[in-house]
Amino acid sequence: MKIKLINPNTTQSMTDSICRMAVRYADPGTDITAVSPKTGPDSIECYVDEYLAVPGVIQEVIKGDRLEDMDAFIIACFGDPGLSAAREVTDKPVLGICEAAIAAAKFIAPYFSVVSVLDRSRKVTEDVVKAYGAESFCRSIRTTGLSVLDFGRDPEKGLAALAQEGRKAVAEDGAECILLGCAGFVDFVDALKQELGVPVLDGVMPAVKFAEALVKMGAKTSKANTWKVPEPKAFKGFDGIVDL
Amino acid sequence: MKIKLINPNTTQSMTDSICRMAVRYADPGTDITAVSPKTGPDSIECYVDEYLAVPGVIQEVIKGDRLEDMDAFIIACFGDPGLSAAREVTDKPVLGICEAAIAAAKFIAPYFSVVSVLDRSRKVTEDVVKAYGAESFCRSIRTTGLSVLDFGRDPEKGLAALAQEGRKAVAEDGAECILLGCAGFVDFVDALKQELGVPVLDGVMPAVKFAEALVKMGAKTSKANTWKVPEPKAFKGFDGIVDL
Amino acid sequence: MKIKLINPNTTQSMTDSICRMAVRYADPGTDITAVSPKTGPDSIECYVDEYLAVPGVIQEVIKGDRLEDMDAFIIACFGDPGLSAAREVTDKPVLGICEAAIAAAKFIAPYFSVVSVLDRSRKVTEDVVKAYGAESFCRSIRTTGLSVLDFGRDPEKGLAALAQEGRKAVAEDGAECILLGCAGFVDFVDALKQELGVPVLDGVMPAVKFAEALVKMGAKTSKANTWKVPEPKAFKGFDGIVDL
Amino acid sequence: MKIKLINPNTTQSMTDSICRMAVRYADPGTDITAVSPKTGPDSIECYVDEYLAVPGVIQEVIKGDRLEDMDAFIIACFGDPGLSAAREVTDKPVLGICEAAIAAAKFIAPYFSVVSVLDRSRKVTEDVVKAYGAESFCRSIRTTGLSVLDFGRDPEKGLAALAQEGRKAVAEDGAECILLGCAGFVDFVDALKQELGVPVLDGVMPAVKFAEALVKMGAKTSKANTWKVPEPKAFKGFDGIVDL
Amino acid sequence: MKIKLINPNTTQSMTDSICRMAVRYADPGTDITAVSPKTGPDSIECYVDEYLAVPGVIQEVIKGDRLEDMDAFIIACFGDPGLSAAREVTDKPVLGICEAAIAAAKFIAPYFSVVSVLDRSRKVTEDVVKAYGAESFCRSIRTTGLSVLDFGRDPEKGLAALAQEGRKAVAEDGAECILLGCAGFVDFVDALKQELGVPVLDGVMPAVKFAEALVKMGAKTSKANTWKVPEPKAFKGFDGIVDL
Amino acid sequence: MKIKLINPNTTQSMTDSICRMAVRYADPGTDITAVSPKTGPDSIECYVDEYLAVPGVIQEVIKGDRLEDMDAFIIACFGDPGLSAAREVTDKPVLGICEAAIAAAKFIAPYFSVVSVLDRSRKVTEDVVKAYGAESFCRSIRTTGLSVLDFGRDPEKGLAALAQEGRKAVAEDGAECILLGCAGFVDFVDALKQELGVPVLDGVMPAVKFAEALVKMGAKTSKANTWKVPEPKAFKGFDGIVDL
Repeated sequence: MKIKLINPNTTQSMTDSICRMAVRYADPGTDITAVSPKTGPDSIECYVDEYLAVPGVIQEVIKGDRLEDMDAFIIACFGDPGLSAAREVTDKPVLGICEAAIAAAKFIAPYFSVVSVLDRSRKVTEDVVKAYGAESFCRSIRTTGLSVLDFGRDPEKGLAALAQEGRKAVAEDGAECILLGCAGFVDFVDALKQELGVPVLDGVMPAVKFAEALVKMGAKTSKANTWKVPEPKAFKGFDGIVDL
Repeated sequence: MKIKLINPNTTQSMTDSICRMAVRYADPGTDITAVSPKTGPDSIECYVDEYLAVPGVIQEVIKGDRLEDMDAFIIACFGDPGLSAAREVTDKPVLGICEAAIAAAKFIAPYFSVVSVLDRSRKVTEDVVKAYGAESFCRSIRTTGLSVLDFGRDPEKGLAALAQEGRKAVAEDGAECILLGCAGFVDFVDALKQELGVPVLDGVMPAVKFAEALVKMGAKTSKANTWKVPEPKAFKGFDGIVDL
Repeated sequence: MKIKLINPNTTQSMTDSICRMAVRYADPGTDITAVSPKTGPDSIECYVDEYLAVPGVIQEVIKGDRLEDMDAFIIACFGDPGLSAAREVTDKPVLGICEAAIAAAKFIAPYFSVVSVLDRSRKVTEDVVKAYGAESFCRSIRTTGLSVLDFGRDPEKGLAALAQEGRKAVAEDGAECILLGCAGFVDFVDALKQELGVPVLDGVMPAVKFAEALVKMGAKTSKANTWKVPEPKAFKGFDGIVDL
Repeated sequence: MKIKLINPNTTQSMTDSICRMAVRYADPGTDITAVSPKTGPDSIECYVDEYLAVPGVIQEVIKGDRLEDMDAFIIACFGDPGLSAAREVTDKPVLGICEAAIAAAKFIAPYFSVVSVLDRSRKVTEDVVKAYGAESFCRSIRTTGLSVLDFGRDPEKGLAALAQEGRKAVAEDGAECILLGCAGFVDFVDALKQELGVPVLDGVMPAVKFAEALVKMGAKTSKANTWKVPEPKAFKGFDGIVDL
Repeated sequence: MKIKLINPNTTQSMTDSICRMAVRYADPGTDITAVSPKTGPDSIECYVDEYLAVPGVIQEVIKGDRLEDMDAFIIACFGDPGLSAAREVTDKPVLGICEAAIAAAKFIAPYFSVVSVLDRSRKVTEDVVKAYGAESFCRSIRTTGLSVLDFGRDPEKGLAALAQEGRKAVAEDGAECILLGCAGFVDFVDALKQELGVPVLDGVMPAVKFAEALVKMGAKTSKANTWKVPEPKAFKGFDGIVDL
Repeated sequence: MKIKLINPNTTQSMTDSICRMAVRYADPGTDITAVSPKTGPDSIECYVDEYLAVPGVIQEVIKGDRLEDMDAFIIACFGDPGLSAAREVTDKPVLGICEAAIAAAKFIAPYFSVVSVLDRSRKVTEDVVKAYGAESFCRSIRTTGLSVLDFGRDPEKGLAALAQEGRKAVAEDGAECILLGCAGFVDFVDALKQELGVPVLDGVMPAVKFAEALVKMGAKTSKANTWKVPEPKAFKGFDGIVDL
């Protein structure tokens, strides 16, 4: 089975971390390919970043579907940017890591909290939590005030900040499981689990496992209506960026 | 990996069907054990049935956890009876097939409908759909007016009834995926898929695959608060039924 | 008129307290019978407890309906365990004390809070508040960290803890009425009312009065569909526990 | 015990019908006084009617509280006009018939529908159903297209229209209990019960019984904050209409 | 274009402030008329106040529609008292200042908070925020504990209290825009904007601009059903107060 | 005042229609500029279309903000694609036509329905209706099965289809106002208004008027947190497409 992991930003070190996490948890028979799109921002922290990341995500899904014989796709950014569009251009399962993390959390805990990056990203996270019908399971979204790239630059400081917000989420907000609200946090999972004493989930691990599960079920994205292949039409300005 | 599949009713033929479905989709390394509890009703169609099924379910989970070295549990009735109680008596993942079916459906379709048995069971299904935060994804719950055991007695009539309600769900209600609202429907999945032209999911298949996924993730049920092991206390009347 | 009060746990001293409260508020012509089931836990603080209490509750309702000529039933535990099942086995009104307390509170205050026992029980209370459509009336659920039986062992400490949480609910959460989230708190009502200066409601009192009201209205549980008498079917293992 | 029943419109024949219903179900020791305010419309079918009925309702509550020694009040119009204002001017329980009907319905059926008068009144009913947190229990609001006074003029036609909408509510919408959405429908309850085969509730009967229940509980409207006595202030133009 | 601004209370100094705000922002071609009704309370802080204000509001709308050739109406009290009734008696646009403030806030900020007067008024504000579907945009409703007339008596103290609650709303609740929850606060807008560093909106300004916009669009209140002209009927006791 | 109207698709004839509508309703002092981005699809009917339209929308807002001295922006596609991103790159008001149409409808009718293009677009419309908190005001979303470009090719057929769905929305769904769910429908407004007898709103007209209103209020997009200017970062592949 071939799973393509798309880190929607263009920071290769983050793609590498994500890939390691995926490989660590993938089944022996699963072949993981992790890529950054050729186009897009080097981190995703606001709506502009999200929108400029999506064309590259769509392109990687199209390539994976038509040329690379992929069986499933994972969009590895906690805002799940472009997920619905990606589901239009292939009938192979496409998972977002936020969606996967929430699905996993609901199986093992009655309530979760998300710990995340900049405060400005809070609304993006609220939007996706709501979109998945998980408001009543989500006790809080806590932010560290650190940017995606801050975490790369000073991982220790990042870990301390995540631990602090995670502890508050458990003690004050009633969280019984912590979700890490950024794909770049995969390297902190083990340390935080020990620190917090409750389940800690990044989204990459469950996305890989659920993607494998869906492929083995033979599950395909429904082409009944909403996520049908887009009607053929003229696009301007995306030559070399998106090949529909 | 050992997964215990608990059919909460005592009808062995249904346990057998469920087991076949589970085995068909289980990973090569997964050992499936399917049981009916020693206590409970022969089908589950109302709240009394649910409540009298649960002690047996709890008992099978306790046995599986303490004596049988199980890695995960599946409650194979679409009302997910006793799921929260089961999660208290073990820290191994416990999945309900309704919860698993909904999680799978949300990965592959924007909207689903459930087709089910007697009209009186509709509210049980509404309750669980709501409990999982899936109201806005569920376009309708359609019932056939046939009992669980009617389906066993006349499978062809049952299949025709499910196909009719499934077609209406797609054409009139906007469903883009159909969930089969009874564990006993596992044998109809393939026929209905062909008939309806949209994804059709029973709950057993996704429950098996997601249970395997959670075990491989090392995921454990959170013991932070709600689902902690029950406080030791005196129980009357359950000797030989539930061994806490 | 004969009302049967079922304390779903097997602690007789609690049944006695509940009975005194009921008798104190019952109409002169009302005959109160208060029982503990023969089976079940000695206190109810988690889902396992709830589920193992319900068969006994169902049995007491069946007995009351068929043999004891009861006119109404009250399930006297704040989680209202088995309420929907009880409504299937009789057409006489069945009330839960949580449901009754919330109905009473809504008549006399715009917002209420619940003060309760162990923190782990919070979700059970959230579930019932939600099930009755009362989320937007409920300002908070506050817990004391004491178990049901702790309250019996040290009532003064219990009262002090309830008063403290009640005061916070009024001052910080905007509660204008306090609901006592455990049937065992009936003895604290008067003291808390004085202490808090806002209406304080246990559930037993309103359940008795509303049960009387429903009986006098000639109201019967609807047998139109959901709560019809259960279809006859085979049950294993409940001989001597539940006589369907 | 003295209960004052306020028919917010000025049609005496409707006040008489409501009074008969109340007296029929009141306890022997309950003294029912039924009045129409001196001011207001002769029927209530739109927001203007509601708002012009409320001053008279407030005045009757004030009189009842200060001069008539009333123990409880009932506002007998299905829109519960002025309920929150009435609760400010007295600490005796004040019940609206819609609120009471919904509370009663929830005790005996999982779902109800309302059958009512003109289609334009539908939103008023939707507003109150929502305000009481009962959306998920209410399957439909069906209207007959007849005005309040049409029902008075041609009761047979009115009854037939209610029966027809009631049947549709049960058969098509899943109602398991029917609420009559106008105080003027009290005379149709018995006939509709027989016709429809499910519980049929007007609001006057449960309001009387629940008012008695609250008085016997010693329940008072919370004066903690929202429904405190209004601050003294100058009012122009209501001399002889409302005496604050 | 002629816009009639109705201050539902009878305090002329407040009507004057509101008028100045309206004139300051009105288009050159807009003729603003600001009135207090002849009947009603001198401030609006509870439900009784609201209900006794509405007949005067209705009367001013009727006069404006029939005799004064008005093109639109604004109800200038943050509870929007009588808005739906007013929409029945005219087909010219009628706007409430709360509704307008919320509409404006949603165009320029993802979240807002309301800062308001007495704590008892909080529920009125919650009711309207909910009625307009804005719960998920509203981070908090904060109250100063000062009455409407306190603000008139000691504006400096009032401003300081609003600034303090506004700062907390931004820092603690996540508000990104502040709405002033009383028409009497129009004079504080500029000072608060500077103080808080986020957009601050009273409701009068957006109501005037949106009313002008609706008139220029040729928009009329829908007379399709709910807000049709009231059916002619007899009213008692409102001669000289409301001329229907 | 200068308002820039951005038709997110690249079909010039639609931009021209939209422009005519805007000019017809704009104030004399308002200067309307209507553009199609240089990049993007020729119609927007699915998520891929939306996402590939947004970079061009962002670019037009950036240009309008930095180089063209625009005072406000309108995104003229009923899915409001890229609205939140556009609000990050300027502090001038940015309106989506769906958001504006809903705001206008709520001022003049209690309920609306949307009539739209292909059935697959229904979910996009549901998403935005939900995002604006308007679910409870929206009675239905009805689709014609015709594509955006079908309407251009055969306007008469398009008009007939819209009229038919609009009539059903009023008669069957309880709509009291009709919203046209595509910017390309501006030319049908007058004919539909006459045909349906209820208010009919496209989104361009209210967006223009509300944009003017916001500019005259001096309203700016809040830069407090969520919609701050994006952090400077590296973007690949958007040279000549988006100039951040």
